[in-house]
Amino acid sequence: MQYPQAITQLIDSYMKLPGIGAKTATRLAFFTIDMDDADVQEFAQSLQAVKTQLTYCSICGNITDIDPCLICTDPHRDQSQILVVEQPKDIMALENMHSYQGLYHVLGGVLSPVKGVGPDELKIKLLVERLKKSKQVQEVIVATNATPEGEATAMYLAKLIKPAGIKVTRLAHGLAVGADIEYADQMTLKRAVEGRQQL
Amino acid sequence: MQYPQAITQLIDSYMKLPGIGAKTATRLAFFTIDMDDADVQEFAQSLQAVKTQLTYCSICGNITDIDPCLICTDPHRDQSQILVVEQPKDIMALENMHSYQGLYHVLGGVLSPVKGVGPDELKIKLLVERLKKSKQVQEVIVATNATPEGEATAMYLAKLIKPAGIKVTRLAHGLAVGADIEYADQMTLKRAVEGRQQL
Repeated sequence: MQYPQAITQLIDSYMKLPGIGAKTATRLAFFTIDMDDADVQEFAQSLQAVKTQLTYCSICGNITDIDPCLICTDPHRDQSQILVVEQPKDIMALENMHSYQGLYHVLGGVLSPVKGVGPDELKIKLLVERLKKSKQVQEVIVATNATPEGEATAMYLAKLIKPAGIKVTRLAHGLAVGADIEYADQMTLKRAVEGRQQL
Repeated sequence: MQYPQAITQLIDSYMKLPGIGAKTATRLAFFTIDMDDADVQEFAQSLQAVKTQLTYCSICGNITDIDPCLICTDPHRDQSQILVVEQPKDIMALENMHSYQGLYHVLGGVLSPVKGVGPDELKIKLLVERLKKSKQVQEVIVATNATPEGEATAMYLAKLIKPAGIKVTRLAHGLAVGADIEYADQMTLKRAVEGRQQL
């Protein structure tokens, strides 16, 4: 005996999501059957909406429903700084700190020869053209993650952009606020010592 | 800054699923944005399908796309046995062992005074009427889970059905196949000793 086709299909769909295996997908599918009609309808509509209503900003590469995005078109933002991130999600985390007022640029990943990601797979060309076009940018802050690939991408961007006379900086690495020295990993401690500041 | 509305809505929808919090929902939503158009479309359709195409079998209470369900209308199944389960999912697990050939009945839960679930909230009346109507049923196998509520429900059903001259049995409890005695819990061990069989 098989589940009715509608259930099997929903289980298959749930299984396409990351970190969801057959057991969880089955549990979610049966949960869905007992959900409110309106909630399921809204769920289905929002799934379709993210595919139809969203696009990537043609200037910065961020996910947006209006192109160019609200950050790129905001005249109150500091046009002299561009902060480069790997993913649109990173922008959200940075915006939540409510202190950075400059612009952003989303690479869409990091350089990774192993995974076959070269400069052409990322939005690096778009960034270079953007810097050429705008005469206002004075600093590019590279905020790729502190992974080997993230570091390599930061180095690559620095080499590419510095000759144009634009300052290239990197986010500080060190101890997280509230973290115990006792539990910090060696790389983090090393960076914290190297980046020590005068009191 | 907020995410575009389509993303916020999708995150909200994912968060309505069990075991999915804000962080996971956000991760799933961004994953969805990068999924194949066809996969997302199929996902949305299957969500709607489980709400529109599925119904509960009017005989046994199982989830089905055809009423009565395929098990109830199968003439090759043993009409003398009805196996009572808590949830439609349980039927699937039992069918997967490919050895039980009788019919099923889904209670839709277990008796639980604490949660306000009495006999009227379950499909117990439907079962009793079914037994009255059919003259063929000789045995009702109660397969509620081995929780206090499951045991109480089994006792309740036994009291209700036995007077009609129908045999009421309960699934055997004991050590799981492949389980170590060393790691078995006390209740399971107690049941295993009580239910010991002659070699």
